[in-house]
Amino acid sequence: MIKRPKILVTNDDGIFAPGIYALWEAMQEIGDVTIVAPDSEKSAVGHAITITDPIRVEKIQRKNGFEGFAVKGTPADCVKIAGRSLMKSPPDIVVSGINSGANVGSNIIYSGTVSAATEGTILGIPSVAISLNSIKGGDMTASQKVAGTVVKKVLENGLPSGILLNVNVPNISEEAIKGYRITKQGKLVFTDRFEKREDPRGKFYYWMKGEIINDTDSESDGYAIQNDYVSITPIHYQLTEESFIKTLESWEF
Amino acid sequence: MIKRPKILVTNDDGIFAPGIYALWEAMQEIGDVTIVAPDSEKSAVGHAITITDPIRVEKIQRKNGFEGFAVKGTPADCVKIAGRSLMKSPPDIVVSGINSGANVGSNIIYSGTVSAATEGTILGIPSVAISLNSIKGGDMTASQKVAGTVVKKVLENGLPSGILLNVNVPNISEEAIKGYRITKQGKLVFTDRFEKREDPRGKFYYWMKGEIINDTDSESDGYAIQNDYVSITPIHYQLTEESFIKTLESWEF
Repeated sequence: MIKRPKILVTNDDGIFAPGIYALWEAMQEIGDVTIVAPDSEKSAVGHAITITDPIRVEKIQRKNGFEGFAVKGTPADCVKIAGRSLMKSPPDIVVSGINSGANVGSNIIYSGTVSAATEGTILGIPSVAISLNSIKGGDMTASQKVAGTVVKKVLENGLPSGILLNVNVPNISEEAIKGYRITKQGKLVFTDRFEKREDPRGKFYYWMKGEIINDTDSESDGYAIQNDYVSITPIHYQLTEESFIKTLESWEF
Repeated sequence: MIKRPKILVTNDDGIFAPGIYALWEAMQEIGDVTIVAPDSEKSAVGHAITITDPIRVEKIQRKNGFEGFAVKGTPADCVKIAGRSLMKSPPDIVVSGINSGANVGSNIIYSGTVSAATEGTILGIPSVAISLNSIKGGDMTASQKVAGTVVKKVLENGLPSGILLNVNVPNISEEAIKGYRITKQGKLVFTDRFEKREDPRGKFYYWMKGEIINDTDSESDGYAIQNDYVSITPIHYQLTEESFIKTLESWEF
């Protein structure tokens, strides 16, 4: 393990969120931390990047010496600009989180938290996304411990090219956590509904409302956190469905 | 094949872009078209959805009977709201495009065009993303032909659950196209650089500048379009890297 690793901390809830503060605290014990995160909440931005607008960067401070770069951009922008421009040399690891709300099942593809870690992986840096299964935030002591454990393991062992870790922590005390499970991305989805409303000028708008359908597959990420385990899923961004290539070739285009 | 299929047309360049008009023309010959697309350009939004803002929807018209719903939201929002609310019943197919600019290699994960098709797949609808390898747009005659051919094949054969098609068309005449290749998502990437500038008030901002590194793998999507073939890649959104599960288990968390 590198003596004093350089750790890039980012998130999608914004640089003023409680989760990134908790992550900074945990990472400080392991290495030298640089914080580069969106200046405001960027949840569900997926793997967006900013190409048509300039990206503004400002130094900000919070209590106890928390200092970072607030970026007018997406989580993926933050990692790109940190690795390519703001940091003198690329970090040894990218850690994204601690997100308020689990990133499991189909929701991974909407997740700004995961996309920041994916961007780190694209830049060739071992990367980890960490989320707490509580949209209201809450006590992050257990998540901090998990973040420390996982990051140390990654710094010791490395990660193969193109693979990142998506970590989800159940919203219970450290003592109540039953252990760690290596899982697969499950099938948890939201049943999206749209509520139609009329504004005072007679124009229509919609609110998206989703209800979770939980995962019953015992190997899945969602099932693990519902059953009081920390879930660690190795994920990639190679999207080819190789099993369908032969069939498509038989369609004779 | 369904006699008069219901086709949902969307994109990420916005409902007033030339590409969606060209796609509408091509799809009209095949079925009944509903157009639901962002009200402005949404390139590189990745798989974003809008959860913290209301989604406004307005009916718009262009020439020759082109009518559609302009959505203040992302491509994924458009497909969700079309399938769940704006259309009386879900479409038989979702077609996203014709995008100005190829969506190949690592860039697939930033692509709003592909994310719209992914969202269709999540909703259980066969879905296709179509992009033209020219960021300036240009003549879409060949792309229209390709869109028609691919959509008819999908309507005839169906697509397995969880699989969508990512189609890229070289920017050459129909006659110059050498044929179709079933490909894999390649390794084409951008070397992102950031140009730092100072605004008149002394504050810093950055522009992202990318240069393409082309793909030399002959099975890849990028290689196909560089060599005058239409590229069709079957893709999924199951991100688990199964090959790494055993190793992670040996880390003994």
